[in-house]
Amino acid sequence: MSLSVAELWSAMTTEAQQYGGNEPVLASFYHASILNHPDFPAALSFQIAGKLGCDSVPAMLVRDVFHEAMAADPGIVRAAADDICAHFDRDPACDHYGMPFLYFKGFQAVQGYRIAHWLWQQGRISMALFLQNRIATAFDVDIHPAATLGSGIMIDHATGLVIGETAVVGNNVSMLHSVTLGGCGSRRGLRHPRIGDGVLISAGAKVLGGINVGEGAKIAAGSVVLCDVGPFTTVAGVPAKQVGRETNELPALNMDQNIDEA
Amino acid sequence: MSLSVAELWSAMTTEAQQYGGNEPVLASFYHASILNHPDFPAALSFQIAGKLGCDSVPAMLVRDVFHEAMAADPGIVRAAADDICAHFDRDPACDHYGMPFLYFKGFQAVQGYRIAHWLWQQGRISMALFLQNRIATAFDVDIHPAATLGSGIMIDHATGLVIGETAVVGNNVSMLHSVTLGGCGSRRGLRHPRIGDGVLISAGAKVLGGINVGEGAKIAAGSVVLCDVGPFTTVAGVPAKQVGRETNELPALNMDQNIDEA
Amino acid sequence: MSLSVAELWSAMTTEAQQYGGNEPVLASFYHASILNHPDFPAALSFQIAGKLGCDSVPAMLVRDVFHEAMAADPGIVRAAADDICAHFDRDPACDHYGMPFLYFKGFQAVQGYRIAHWLWQQGRISMALFLQNRIATAFDVDIHPAATLGSGIMIDHATGLVIGETAVVGNNVSMLHSVTLGGCGSRRGLRHPRIGDGVLISAGAKVLGGINVGEGAKIAAGSVVLCDVGPFTTVAGVPAKQVGRETNELPALNMDQNIDEA
Amino acid sequence: MSLSVAELWSAMTTEAQQYGGNEPVLASFYHASILNHPDFPAALSFQIAGKLGCDSVPAMLVRDVFHEAMAADPGIVRAAADDICAHFDRDPACDHYGMPFLYFKGFQAVQGYRIAHWLWQQGRISMALFLQNRIATAFDVDIHPAATLGSGIMIDHATGLVIGETAVVGNNVSMLHSVTLGGCGSRRGLRHPRIGDGVLISAGAKVLGGINVGEGAKIAAGSVVLCDVGPFTTVAGVPAKQVGRETNELPALNMDQNIDEA
Amino acid sequence: MSLSVAELWSAMTTEAQQYGGNEPVLASFYHASILNHPDFPAALSFQIAGKLGCDSVPAMLVRDVFHEAMAADPGIVRAAADDICAHFDRDPACDHYGMPFLYFKGFQAVQGYRIAHWLWQQGRISMALFLQNRIATAFDVDIHPAATLGSGIMIDHATGLVIGETAVVGNNVSMLHSVTLGGCGSRRGLRHPRIGDGVLISAGAKVLGGINVGEGAKIAAGSVVLCDVGPFTTVAGVPAKQVGRETNELPALNMDQNIDEA
Amino acid sequence: MSLSVAELWSAMTTEAQQYGGNEPVLASFYHASILNHPDFPAALSFQIAGKLGCDSVPAMLVRDVFHEAMAADPGIVRAAADDICAHFDRDPACDHYGMPFLYFKGFQAVQGYRIAHWLWQQGRISMALFLQNRIATAFDVDIHPAATLGSGIMIDHATGLVIGETAVVGNNVSMLHSVTLGGCGSRRGLRHPRIGDGVLISAGAKVLGGINVGEGAKIAAGSVVLCDVGPFTTVAGVPAKQVGRETNELPALNMDQNIDEA
Repeated sequence: MSLSVAELWSAMTTEAQQYGGNEPVLASFYHASILNHPDFPAALSFQIAGKLGCDSVPAMLVRDVFHEAMAADPGIVRAAADDICAHFDRDPACDHYGMPFLYFKGFQAVQGYRIAHWLWQQGRISMALFLQNRIATAFDVDIHPAATLGSGIMIDHATGLVIGETAVVGNNVSMLHSVTLGGCGSRRGLRHPRIGDGVLISAGAKVLGGINVGEGAKIAAGSVVLCDVGPFTTVAGVPAKQVGRETNELPALNMDQNIDEA
Repeated sequence: MSLSVAELWSAMTTEAQQYGGNEPVLASFYHASILNHPDFPAALSFQIAGKLGCDSVPAMLVRDVFHEAMAADPGIVRAAADDICAHFDRDPACDHYGMPFLYFKGFQAVQGYRIAHWLWQQGRISMALFLQNRIATAFDVDIHPAATLGSGIMIDHATGLVIGETAVVGNNVSMLHSVTLGGCGSRRGLRHPRIGDGVLISAGAKVLGGINVGEGAKIAAGSVVLCDVGPFTTVAGVPAKQVGRETNELPALNMDQNIDEA
Repeated sequence: MSLSVAELWSAMTTEAQQYGGNEPVLASFYHASILNHPDFPAALSFQIAGKLGCDSVPAMLVRDVFHEAMAADPGIVRAAADDICAHFDRDPACDHYGMPFLYFKGFQAVQGYRIAHWLWQQGRISMALFLQNRIATAFDVDIHPAATLGSGIMIDHATGLVIGETAVVGNNVSMLHSVTLGGCGSRRGLRHPRIGDGVLISAGAKVLGGINVGEGAKIAAGSVVLCDVGPFTTVAGVPAKQVGRETNELPALNMDQNIDEA
Repeated sequence: MSLSVAELWSAMTTEAQQYGGNEPVLASFYHASILNHPDFPAALSFQIAGKLGCDSVPAMLVRDVFHEAMAADPGIVRAAADDICAHFDRDPACDHYGMPFLYFKGFQAVQGYRIAHWLWQQGRISMALFLQNRIATAFDVDIHPAATLGSGIMIDHATGLVIGETAVVGNNVSMLHSVTLGGCGSRRGLRHPRIGDGVLISAGAKVLGGINVGEGAKIAAGSVVLCDVGPFTTVAGVPAKQVGRETNELPALNMDQNIDEA
Repeated sequence: MSLSVAELWSAMTTEAQQYGGNEPVLASFYHASILNHPDFPAALSFQIAGKLGCDSVPAMLVRDVFHEAMAADPGIVRAAADDICAHFDRDPACDHYGMPFLYFKGFQAVQGYRIAHWLWQQGRISMALFLQNRIATAFDVDIHPAATLGSGIMIDHATGLVIGETAVVGNNVSMLHSVTLGGCGSRRGLRHPRIGDGVLISAGAKVLGGINVGEGAKIAAGSVVLCDVGPFTTVAGVPAKQVGRETNELPALNMDQNIDEA
Repeated sequence: MSLSVAELWSAMTTEAQQYGGNEPVLASFYHASILNHPDFPAALSFQIAGKLGCDSVPAMLVRDVFHEAMAADPGIVRAAADDICAHFDRDPACDHYGMPFLYFKGFQAVQGYRIAHWLWQQGRISMALFLQNRIATAFDVDIHPAATLGSGIMIDHATGLVIGETAVVGNNVSMLHSVTLGGCGSRRGLRHPRIGDGVLISAGAKVLGGINVGEGAKIAAGSVVLCDVGPFTTVAGVPAKQVGRETNELPALNMDQNIDEA
């Protein structure tokens, strides 16, 4: 269930007062990260820029780029809020909204990607590539800035995730660590998968080539997917084969990584 | 074969004199990390806190938390010593005790986890989550502070390892990089595996859901385990099926990743 | 197609002028990384030492070690140039030579390994192990300094790659992230694979034990390889079985991760 | 001659293009410090916050405090512009406006003080004291946040300057390094000097106690001033005595440190 | 009026709760610096080591040296407490005990000196010289580790203070910034001044050579003292001459920098 | 007595072995700073660049500028060796050659200045100004890159030293902290002093305007010099007057700060 940005921000500030109050070592961390800011976008740019800044491009300058991008495309902030709600709703270990915001490498990497993607769209290729490298270094997540991601994205644990240049990911998709949306071949052009809404891609699955994964599909952990996957279908194995058919709900939302062998 | 903490410390200081003496670039590194300390706990807190400190919580303060935890629970130091011996005994590339202590991300991540776990048990939830994030950032290892790990744990190479909130890991378990002890579903409650003593989980294996993996079992590399595994049993495949039965010794100790197909 | 070191350097400086000119935020980054140097080796040592320096061993000192190694073994520079060309030729997302040099963790990790390997050969064991740890920390790539790698190596995305102590990798090999060339058993001695020229090892594949993978073989994504693989053969699955036979070209060069099931 | 903020900003951006263009090592430094910003206040907060940030209070957070203060009191930006013009007009070694902005510790310290002073006025005493310490550490200039300074202030070289709690400094004052506006006695209350407009206080002079230094006065280098100084009067010596009388212009503007002994 | 260490610590923790509570940006700074510690020595070593640590000798290691010195010589802690009280009693701008502890470079430099002095006494010459350099870099205060300082020392503002190798400073002495206790000549042996108890040395005064400054003497700002100064005597000028005679109290305590010309 | 560069280097390496051997905390510091280098220039560039590097211009790049300057002007290295010998010969607290090299801010600042001066001569104005700022920040010493300094320069303690744009300093000059060679007036052109060979300028003295200070002159501590000073003459006071006449030796060499009132 997605909150408005204002509702989310209100919940995050309430939480931060509680968590910072309980742990004086972190009181200023909660203050600087959340309470000190007038609104969610200001806190978001502070938090992610603080992770992506480096000697060559300091955090303050990265933050200015965030502000520039968020002003030009309000969808960036909206998507970030949806991503937080996605973690909160789907990850039972996530019991407050501040957790993905403050601690989850997957959430943070995706927000960095959104800015790199905006830069790529503006033709600022080298700055986009620079950010991609910073994200890969800081979060161990490698998303090409030309890839297209929807909102409500959850990337759990995140280490080792790779999303290639021509990949397209729909809304409300859940992916776990070590997932690859990879390319096939050394020719340019469309060569990465297109992932439908509500898809769940379990830990370590590799989806390779310019294939389609239909809405509501589920890809089992460790699978290697080389062919199209139909909507609301479960595939598993190396190479992956159809093993079941989902019915009632989107697998990205219930996060059931089991394989219901048909 | 596990040494007493004093025996281990004696061996480590002897080694450090030799290695530091051979390489003057690193003489002070060996001194600061090992020789400068009166005993093993002091060196351990120095070494791990130095990796986990950051701007918000400097290393000296992390070290004070280590001292607090180690004073309250002497098992933390004992387990660290067992972990070092586990690497020394099982990893043929590890020919001196200082190697895991100084260089191995898996060993260092587990020691950070032990402190985060103690914080979690004290109800210092936000400090435990903060440390979990620092461990995931510094070592690329994501262990939930609520998980329970035994001693004599070896996590080789370690990058990408994930252990979830309700997982339980016995003693003398060996895991390699990219292993996942993951959850199933979006409901709270017991949803991660319970791993018995002496189990070997090979590289990239995913063990998912609230299942039991019996004592002395072996899980082959790249396997995806979704059902219980009996004691002294080898499983392999996606999804994993039984492929053999161990007899004489614990697979965690001999580290044979082969599959003896029955 | 591999360029001479001088040709490569000429191309890289031309590119850097263009990219730095387009993005003033990065102008000095391109200058400091490339344009400021008289030749390719000076730039290479600057770039990689800057990533591997730390408090205990500052970047300037790491750079001196690079210069010492490159003076003693000119093959190190030649191999680095071949590695850049490998990325440029095989990775369609890599459209200029500066990309691996500046941004790709796989390229950077391999160049760090080449220095650690030289140190190991000189008997400077602790310095080699120290660098191995720095590489694993900075790039999430764990290559034992005693392993032997050829030239023209491409490691795409790279996170989680592991290459063990007694592994041997030929020339013009392509590997993707999460690939493991791992050992079997806890006894010392030859226990890691030998990979022939032109082999492609797809994402997440685990090749385990002292086996041979023949020239021009292809190992499918997510496979677990426990037995020898013949030349120009494709294997897939957990455990991996032969699924096809290559004919015309080296799979490492065309990067086709598909499985042509025979 | 003081420029408007817009005129100053226009001159600074023109200079930065020239200086950055001549020296590629610094091209991005000029860009990040000046050209990347939409206006003078944005550049000012970036520049000074970048010097004052530290582990406990990162630069981005200091910058937010600058923005808060500059929004509440527009005089802060106006005074900063006047200070730059003061350096440009009075210091013959300063031949472009960017020099004090980028390089002069005296200018930078005063801008930090202006924010600390605003915090003090808001009752944020501990934050003001924290900033005072950061300024003293970064620039070797110790100005109490409760002191009052006018605009058009030049502090040349600056190392060792001290201005006490109850000091008042008028407009267009020039001071050199090691100048002290110090207190007398251990009782609270007014105990530091009041300096009139256009005063020149030469290097190393100490002005002590709750005395008045009249408009247009000149205090010779190394003097110790313990009594009131009349307007347009030159004093010198230890303790200082009247040695001359100025006539035509303000000594702060011509920077003539000579003593025209009467 | 000097408090016991326990009384001082109690006052400091009460203050820290108040100041940290008023300013959430600094709440964790007050916690980490003061409230997190069990007693005054633990906080002192944390605070000063945090300033003196560097790449070559990290803060945690400096702190261990502090603990070693404070255990061997309890007078170090007692003197630190007296120094804090000296600032509180004599500096009207210092209205709580935490100010010198957290913010005053003079106090912090003297505590660093006390450790360097202890190292010098143990014959650890190079470590003492290393610390002297770190103190000079961090605080702009250059005290030779062989010099001898009493307790109840206040060094106000502190920038530029120099105390030479054979200087001896009594108890309850107050010095201001830019004071020099310097040597004469290029021969080794006693060549710096001996300063009696309760002396006040005002800003910028230079006291040079192996002379005696008697108890309760006052040296005016900017003076250059080349001959012995009698007890309870005021000297001023370049070179300094006697200008007055104190009667009732120690000038170091009332901080009256005026010259009562006799 | 000045050593050849080779003799000096030989002495420094012998010392470093002794000092590093006595203090294992600093063994690698002595190795990295001295023993690891093939010759004196390599060590010098490592040591000073390590102090002057910053985020915008990292130490490795500063070091390359040092190498460029030292290759173009061998006098830079020769002068550095003379400066070390000057400290060793004249400062009784300096009993080994490594002390100024490793620890003395005055020596280090002058070596930084020599590179900035070379850049200024090449017309690289903004790089020279950038370095001047870095030197002023790191060492609290402000030497304009256009000033001209001889060799055999000793700047003792150094904090607060200022040398202006058109100043000229001869050979074998000794200056103490807080000395100013300052300008007069706001017009461009020659406006700073010219200091002859062998001059001693004591602590805190201010020499102002385009005046001449003759060979072998001595300027007493705290003096303010506004007129020419004859050769082998001692001046003192505010303003300075002649107080004595030297005969046998250069005051810079015997460092006698006393005033032999004539």
